[in-house]
Formats: sequence, structure tokens, C-alpha cells
Amino acid sequence: MPDDTELQAWAYLARVVEPPNAPLLSLCDHLGPVEAAAAIRARSVPRGYDDVLTATTARADTEMAEQDLELAARIGARLVTRDDAEWPAWPLLALGQADTASRGGEPLALWVRGSGRLDEAASTGIALIGSRAASRYGEQVTSTLAGGLAADNWTVTSGGAFGVDGAAHRAALACGGQTMAVMACGIDRDYPAGHARLFDQIADTGLVVSEYPPGTTAAKHRFLTRNRLVAAMSNAVVVVEAGRRSGAANTAAWARKLGRPLGAVPGPVTSATSIGCHRMIADGLATLVIDAASVIALAAPDGGGDIGPGPTRPTDALSPEAKRVHDAIPARGSVTIEEIAFSAALDIAAVRSALARMDVSGHVVNIDGAWRLA
Amino acid sequence: MPDDTELQAWAYLARVVEPPNAPLLSLCDHLGPVEAAAAIRARSVPRGYDDVLTATTARADTEMAEQDLELAARIGARLVTRDDAEWPAWPLLALGQADTASRGGEPLALWVRGSGRLDEAASTGIALIGSRAASRYGEQVTSTLAGGLAADNWTVTSGGAFGVDGAAHRAALACGGQTMAVMACGIDRDYPAGHARLFDQIADTGLVVSEYPPGTTAAKHRFLTRNRLVAAMSNAVVVVEAGRRSGAANTAAWARKLGRPLGAVPGPVTSATSIGCHRMIADGLATLVIDAASVIALAAPDGGGDIGPGPTRPTDALSPEAKRVHDAIPARGSVTIEEIAFSAALDIAAVRSALARMDVSGHVVNIDGAWRLA
Repeated sequence: MPDDTELQAWAYLARVVEPPNAPLLSLCDHLGPVEAAAAIRARSVPRGYDDVLTATTARADTEMAEQDLELAARIGARLVTRDDAEWPAWPLLALGQADTASRGGEPLALWVRGSGRLDEAASTGIALIGSRAASRYGEQVTSTLAGGLAADNWTVTSGGAFGVDGAAHRAALACGGQTMAVMACGIDRDYPAGHARLFDQIADTGLVVSEYPPGTTAAKHRFLTRNRLVAAMSNAVVVVEAGRRSGAANTAAWARKLGRPLGAVPGPVTSATSIGCHRMIADGLATLVIDAASVIALAAPDGGGDIGPGPTRPTDALSPEAKRVHDAIPARGSVTIEEIAFSAALDIAAVRSALARMDVSGHVVNIDGAWRLA
Repeated sequence: MPDDTELQAWAYLARVVEPPNAPLLSLCDHLGPVEAAAAIRARSVPRGYDDVLTATTARADTEMAEQDLELAARIGARLVTRDDAEWPAWPLLALGQADTASRGGEPLALWVRGSGRLDEAASTGIALIGSRAASRYGEQVTSTLAGGLAADNWTVTSGGAFGVDGAAHRAALACGGQTMAVMACGIDRDYPAGHARLFDQIADTGLVVSEYPPGTTAAKHRFLTRNRLVAAMSNAVVVVEAGRRSGAANTAAWARKLGRPLGAVPGPVTSATSIGCHRMIADGLATLVIDAASVIALAAPDGGGDIGPGPTRPTDALSPEAKRVHDAIPARGSVTIEEIAFSAALDIAAVRSALARMDVSGHVVNIDGAWRLA
């Protein structure tokens, strides 16, 4: 666990760039957080780290580390760094290996509000994401899925937005399950404002997480950057509803890039909010999922269930010939072997043999030489 | 075209077995229909054709050929044989190659009622099939699909049953399109009786087709046997709705066995009548289809459309950096380059460069040194 000096350095570093920033991460690995912060403040970095200076030009003089940590403490939050025991190193590892050209890369640190442990939440996470303008159907399916996942001890991870996200968090809470909201703004910002109470409830037992320092406002590019964390900290990502153009498509793309199984829930083809899900399935990018069991099968292929076989019928075990004989016997009343032979277009011997077998198996009964269904 | 003697022989042969029957087909190829009929009546067939005798024991003495052909003529129907110009030899060829152990095999002849040409209908067919107990959603989607296929000059093929089948035929007729009903009973039987008027309407411009001689009643095994003809005479088979156990699953299995593309329409995961469709898609057996265009793409991969790309946005062409700059400018009012640089965490030079490019492309405007969205 980092000491105060280190934590203050991490807090400074977490604000000095717009994350993620691979060069800064690399500099921290090279110098440690305290010296990295000092080098940036002094505008003097080791050879090869010039990109760090470029990326930190605008905010190098912003000294808010102490203030950020105090604010976090006041709202029951903490800064979790790469040096902490609860750092979800394994789930986030994929980010370092993914294309870091635009928005990839591991986070430098994560602000976490709530009583849940970040590494535990990340290692048991399943993301339920989708349209902010979810339909009633979408919210209903989200609730059913989230409830089922929570009951099976998965952490329901989402983005805290209206629509699918909110329904996912709420259903997990209602079932007494674990849930994690990954924000595109500071953990103190309660965006959207209408979810302020929900974020409080999530923090009570779960986690509200952000890569952005306190006070950061939500911005379009931050939603895209945030999405990679949702995908990384999930064993599977499920798009419950998504329109023709949806932010969920970006999280889905991250899931694929990071090797996370991607599921999508179908809906009416007449519903605009299912178009994105249907396209992902039709294009072979997502697996169709219908319930919590099929989502779990996606997240844990070895241990989960599947859609499963249908129920059996009494005549399933019969040979095709025996089925024809069976079909030739009316539902009510009895018939002779000759009548059956004609109707089924089988010879008498074949019908007699099939009837004898079905008599033994209890499918038919012989009463005074005529046959009827059992 | 067969002469009267041949046609009468075909009519006798079409009734003497429960179709399909590969040995009888083989005997007809060997002797021609007139001699094949004579051999069966005489219970004396060439060496190697003993199976034909076994299969024809029950009905060899049934002499109804003339009567069948007269009845057919009275209701505007005809017996189409393998010797006729309109015999759909190519579509049915796959049946001869498929596993003939149980219900496979080419038909010997087909009773056809209506004014449509059988070979044309079979070569332009797309099957829409599904639950008899279709939901309102299922019937609505069926109508939309059938209308779209009919408008694109495809023959809408189905089984004439209640639910999806009926909706498919009706919508094709309503759009002035071609439609074909393949029956599991004689073409004179109007099963289900509630569809008698619909069958009359189909026959007016399209085709009501059956492998079974007039008077044959519908039976469970005949539905299964009929299903192979629906699949064979279709360029694609689409399951619109299917419950956990549905006859549509059998037609779908035939489609796969015969190499016909198989599509399935998704629906609400809360709907029992979509369970079968979802399972086929999830198991990779069927392609998810959402509209007539995606069905046509399945039936004619080279000439059809697809689900297609979404609409574009004005900022789609911008670089990630330019998008960040764009996002940093509020929807209303103007901001300085420095404010943008801070908000986007980019250095001044990068912001200036992005703004200059977006000024040229018309995304932003510069008013008195401050920037606003165009």
C-alpha cells in the first residue's frame, strides 16, 4: 500500500493527463510515482519520455492532489493505485496488450467509492449494458438478468446511466447482490444527477469507480474511454438493448478487442432499441443470450448451464415405422391391424411387430383383438 | 408430357405407397410408369425390387387412378409427374441425395391445384414457417416479411396451417405476389378446414401442392414428410416463430440437410413462441434475420442486401484528437483555445491544428478569436 507521499504523487499523476496515457504509465514504472511527479513538475524527464511532457503541458501546474484525496475521504472514497493489494491487475492486463493508439491502455489509478473490494468486483464482473432510452422490455429483461447473475454471486457491472445501466444496478441491489458502476466523470459528480440516490445505494455495498479525478465532468470522449474499463473488468459483456447507433457498440468493440465474451439479447425486430443487438448477432460478433443461465455459460463456459434440451414426448423413443403405426391409431376408439396397415401403408407383419413392441413399452393396448392408444 | 395411359399409371403409383418410397421411384425409372404399375398389380417385379412389393402390399389392389384424376380436374388441379415440363427437377434433386433412410427421397409425382407453374414457384421459393399458435408479433412479422418477399418477386412458400403459415400466404396474396401451400393431406381436403377459403384464393393465382392423393387425411407423419418438400422447394427457409418444440424445427432440420440457408427471426426472450428461434440462432444452426432484405440476402447471397450500415454523423470523419477538441466545445456559446486545451487535455498546438482543420471542414467557426460549433 502506498504511503502518503506516494498517494499524493499518484493523485497528482491521475490528474495531470487525460487518461489513459501509456507514456506516463511507463514513466511511473520507470521512476516510481514520486519521482515521476517531480519530473513532470520540473518539465524535465528522462530521454525517450518527451511524449509525457507534451501530454502534461496543459495540467502540469494543477496542484489538487491533497484536495482530491480529502474530498474522496469525505464521500467514503479512496484512490486505488497499481501499488494497492486490491488493484485488479489481472483483469486490467488485457488493456496493456490491446491497441493503445487511441483510447486504450491501463489506467494509472482508480478512484473508488464504496465498501466493495475492487479486485473482487473485477474478477467476478459481468457487464450488462445498453441503451439509455431502453424500452420497457429492455428494462424488464435487464432486471431479470441482473437478478439471476446477482443470485449466482456475479458482480453486475455497468455504467450508471439511465435505461439498461440503471435497471442492472437496481436489480442487483434489490437481490442483495454485488454491483459496480464505472463512471465517465468524477466519483463525486453523480452523473446523471437523477441517479445520485442510486449511486449512494451502490456505494453502500458495492463500488462506484472512476479513472477521472473528483470534479471531472462527463464528456463524450470520456464515455468511450470509460467503456474500456467496463469491458476489461468483466468476464462477459452483454448488450441488452442497443439502437442502430449506440454507445453500447463501443463497449462491445472493447469486449472483442480484450477477448471478453460478448452476448446480446434479442428482442422484437420491430423495436428500434434491439437493432444493434440483432446486428451484432447476425454479424457473428455476439452470442445470442436469453437468460442468466446463458449469460453465465458465456462468462464461465466450463461451469455454466445452457439453453438446454426441450422436454421429451412419449413417442420420442419409437422408430420411424412405429411412429407411423402410432399415428395411424386414432386418439379415441380402436382399430384393426388391417386398418392400421392401410392407413400407415405398411404390411401386416410390420404393423404387428411394431404393435407388439409398443404394447410392451405401454404405448398401445389390445382389447378383444383391436388396438387403441394407451 | 405423359399421355393418358402414363398419367393413369402415375396416379396409380402415387397412391400405391405411402410416399416417399425410393425403391418404387427406382422401379419407375427402370420400367417406366406403365410397366411399373403393371408389375406391382401382378405382384411380380424384376430381381432386386422386392422392397417394392413389401411397400405396396396394403394398397396394390386400390384402383382409384381414374377417379383421382377426375376429381383433380373438377377442382382445377392436375397431377404433375417427373415427365412433365414443369416438374421442379433441380430443386427436388437434393432430396434424392439426402439420407433416404426414414422420410427422405424425391416425390414420385405432385398433385397441384392452381394456376401457378410448379417449376417457377419452386425455383423462386422462400419458405416462411413457424408456430400454428403464433403470437400477434409473429403474425405481424410474418406479414411484413411475406409482403417484402412478394414485392421482390419471390414465391412465399409455406404449409397452409394456422398461425405463421396462414399469415405468410395471406400477406403474399394481399401484395399480389406468388404463394405456394404444400399440404400434408390431399389437395381436396382443405386442412385446416378454416383455411378452405384461403386455399381457394391461393389456387386462384398460386399453387396448392401435395404429394398425397385426393382424399388423404392429414396425419402426423405426413406433416414431417411434407416438410421436406417445403425445404426442398425453397431457396431459404425462415422460421418466424417456434416454441420449445415445434414442427418448424423439423422443416429447419430438412433445410440444413438439403443445404438450404436457414434463417430465424428473433423475438422477445419473454415469448414462448420465440424460444425455438433463439435456440437455433444461439446454436449456430440459423442466421438471425430481421426483415425481407436480410432474408433475401440469405436466399441470394450475391444479389441481396444486408442489414446495412447505420446513418453517419457529421463528426464520423474526424480523427480521435479532433473529436476530443470537438467535444470540448460546448453546444452553445464560444470558448478560447486555452479553455479547449485544458478541457481536452491537449496542448495548445494540437488544439490549434485540429481547429484549423475543422474550420475548413465546416465543423467549427471562429468569431473574434473564440471558437464555437458550426
